[in-house]
Amino acid sequence: MTSLQLSAKEEMVERFLDAAARGDSAQVSTLLSNVPSLINQTGYSGWTALMLAARNGHYHVVEELLSHGCDKFSVNSSSQTAYDIAKFWGHRHISNLLGRTDDGCHRVLPGSDLNQHENYFSRETLDRLSGKRTDQVWLEAKQSHPDTVFLLFSSLSPMVSSSREDDDTGVETKLCRFRYDAVKDLLQKPATVLIFLGVEKRKKPSSSSSSSSSSQTREGVQEPPAWFAISTDEDTVELLKRCREKNCSFPKSPNRDLLNFNEEEAGVVAQARSVLAWHSRYSFCPTCGSSTKLEEAGYKRSCLNSDCRSLKGVHNTCYPRVDPVVIMLVIHPDGNRCLLGRKKVFPVGMFSCLAGFIEPGETMEEAVRREVEEESGVKVGPVQYVSCQPWPMPSNLMIGCLAVATSTDIKVDENEIEEARWFPRQQVIEALLRGAHPAFTVPPRQTIAHQLIRHWIGMNSNL
Amino acid sequence: MTSLQLSAKEEMVERFLDAAARGDSAQVSTLLSNVPSLINQTGYSGWTALMLAARNGHYHVVEELLSHGCDKFSVNSSSQTAYDIAKFWGHRHISNLLGRTDDGCHRVLPGSDLNQHENYFSRETLDRLSGKRTDQVWLEAKQSHPDTVFLLFSSLSPMVSSSREDDDTGVETKLCRFRYDAVKDLLQKPATVLIFLGVEKRKKPSSSSSSSSSSQTREGVQEPPAWFAISTDEDTVELLKRCREKNCSFPKSPNRDLLNFNEEEAGVVAQARSVLAWHSRYSFCPTCGSSTKLEEAGYKRSCLNSDCRSLKGVHNTCYPRVDPVVIMLVIHPDGNRCLLGRKKVFPVGMFSCLAGFIEPGETMEEAVRREVEEESGVKVGPVQYVSCQPWPMPSNLMIGCLAVATSTDIKVDENEIEEARWFPRQQVIEALLRGAHPAFTVPPRQTIAHQLIRHWIGMNSNL
Repeated sequence: MTSLQLSAKEEMVERFLDAAARGDSAQVSTLLSNVPSLINQTGYSGWTALMLAARNGHYHVVEELLSHGCDKFSVNSSSQTAYDIAKFWGHRHISNLLGRTDDGCHRVLPGSDLNQHENYFSRETLDRLSGKRTDQVWLEAKQSHPDTVFLLFSSLSPMVSSSREDDDTGVETKLCRFRYDAVKDLLQKPATVLIFLGVEKRKKPSSSSSSSSSSQTREGVQEPPAWFAISTDEDTVELLKRCREKNCSFPKSPNRDLLNFNEEEAGVVAQARSVLAWHSRYSFCPTCGSSTKLEEAGYKRSCLNSDCRSLKGVHNTCYPRVDPVVIMLVIHPDGNRCLLGRKKVFPVGMFSCLAGFIEPGETMEEAVRREVEEESGVKVGPVQYVSCQPWPMPSNLMIGCLAVATSTDIKVDENEIEEARWFPRQQVIEALLRGAHPAFTVPPRQTIAHQLIRHWIGMNSNL
Repeated sequence: MTSLQLSAKEEMVERFLDAAARGDSAQVSTLLSNVPSLINQTGYSGWTALMLAARNGHYHVVEELLSHGCDKFSVNSSSQTAYDIAKFWGHRHISNLLGRTDDGCHRVLPGSDLNQHENYFSRETLDRLSGKRTDQVWLEAKQSHPDTVFLLFSSLSPMVSSSREDDDTGVETKLCRFRYDAVKDLLQKPATVLIFLGVEKRKKPSSSSSSSSSSQTREGVQEPPAWFAISTDEDTVELLKRCREKNCSFPKSPNRDLLNFNEEEAGVVAQARSVLAWHSRYSFCPTCGSSTKLEEAGYKRSCLNSDCRSLKGVHNTCYPRVDPVVIMLVIHPDGNRCLLGRKKVFPVGMFSCLAGFIEPGETMEEAVRREVEEESGVKVGPVQYVSCQPWPMPSNLMIGCLAVATSTDIKVDENEIEEARWFPRQQVIEALLRGAHPAFTVPPRQTIAHQLIRHWIGMNSNL
């Protein structure tokens, strides 16, 4: 594309956005008929035509854009949807229009966030089919099925292939996927741990006649592929030879190296690594110290001592552990600063949200208040849940909250953090935008800390 | 009080509520001057004067009532505050007035729920002072201090005194509190587990000159009392003789017997029982099977095998376990029915919210969707967090959500639940109000299931 063509296109986008902002629905319609690809184009700060129309209260333009199938969930550089913008500016008829969903969910649950943010490690691409975990016949058939996907783990690291670029931006990591024939020898070895992860989620055909055919195995209907994770203690150099792809490795720094998958694979890694980490740490029965055996396709360990208490009733000792953690962005009472802290181990200049494990007998909200006061000396009032993120190092559930400070003096607990500071909104925006000389840096976008900071900035910035 | 006096008072309340409902701020003011106790009186369905004034848009009456210090957080029988009511009826100037807090939190965090519901087991009356857990000198001084409170546990049950009435309503359970002299022999025994729970929360005097005196121990300033929990394997009959109170016991059915404390004691029990349950199940190192020793005032167990991996770095095997559980009220797409299920072990006729453990690598929202579909066959769209509750049997964190169904056909997993049904709003209200012939019963008010159901009913009922 020549620079002339580019600028012609830019001009077209400009005219389209301008028409939407002015409320000229006739011109919006004409331009879309001629150039349908204009629909989701963005201008300054990532604003779409829909956002501009929503900002200025042009109901008919919003209708026109929706009828052309525009993306109503896209966000501008402040993470606002057109819906957020319409709501902020009080154009209620437009926010109602944008908030409408086909299934009427918004009407049923008024406060629900239609555009719920998805964090890294959070996407579920597999249906876990937990009911199949005790179906040994089904599991064995799946293991040897030619469509089944196996992932290989060594010391809790998945085998991956990476396209490493010289600059920092272009790294993409992919899981190495194996078929049964390539790993069946490993499955026979006693030190191997095998975890059933689930089957690929697929749109099922609508079956209104399910009652008549539910008990039959329908021939010809192919089941979606199953996924398993294998943990092995074989030599990694030998393991890497099994893969035909280039640049394969078992990355050594999970906190950094596991952040470059696509969303689908990140979700699978979160599940597999957490369960494997549990096996690696919980091989013995904590109640009596005996050895345990793996059951239920990797989701249970039972004590081999038949007299053990853990075999009577249901005991959490037998099931994978998930550690709930609160992570919170604390907002200054003036609403224009937020509290961030840094640990000694952080990269130079990086600050992040405070965080801590929820203790026994504690609510999420109380854990937020206790941790913030312990670490920074700042007292907290209201706490609001935003979103959560599985963090498989080893098996945390990061529960992300906003919190409002009711005091402002900072006194850090030096065992926990090195420094904590109130950062003004403008400095935070510069850090998010990675400007030339930011006052500090924030964690990468894959972390819920980053997303909480972005959420706060987007929540009530001046539009 | 004679019946004549009673009815005179009733009449006064009636006049007061009527004046507020009509917007007669002069009469409201006069009545309050004569009978200040009228301020928070309730009429039909628990409506206060503030709610009635908010309902009918009488700004000056709301102002008048607030200036007299009325309770703006009290709720009517549909769990609505005056703020909720003003908001529902579109009296924005009134909801703004009611939503205002002294510290401006509502302005800083617009969506925050000022009237956040407190669940049973959730109140923190002790400051955990986790920093003191490693301060052996301080802990020992506290143990022998005459103000210190000790609670006694046997087989995870606290020693309690109960005032049991013949009817079901009047049961109140209190923790038996001991002083050092009464339990010091137990502290010497090797099988005893001692947990530091915290110190009583107290309003501290404002110290603007803290910099000058922070390093000094201020003589004469009394520290608040510390609390400890003791778990012992001594004979319970002998233990009960230590207490001078009547009707002491170690209750046997925690799910029932631990629900009759006041809010303060319930919170302490939640903390103590969860930590003790962890010690009872996790005496051995899960990583190597060796014995462990208790550290950090009961919040850590370290492996006694010096070669164990769990001693290198921070490992969750050494810290108390908290199991996050999602519990959800699923709302029908029509908005007027909710999905409740029953397990075989439930009392006859009782239905409750669906629930399940969050799995490794799973968000709260995905766990809600998976559990609902597994247990009932119903598909779920948006999920909204409401509140959470520690449940110390043994150490769950119940994360309460509302969820909107996107399908309605029910197919129960009979391994999990016996039956699931859509219940219309009116039947649910009757069950909450414990009418004469309810179609079913709900769990008691101390459960988050009950509170979620109540929350849904209060959220958008017709006022």
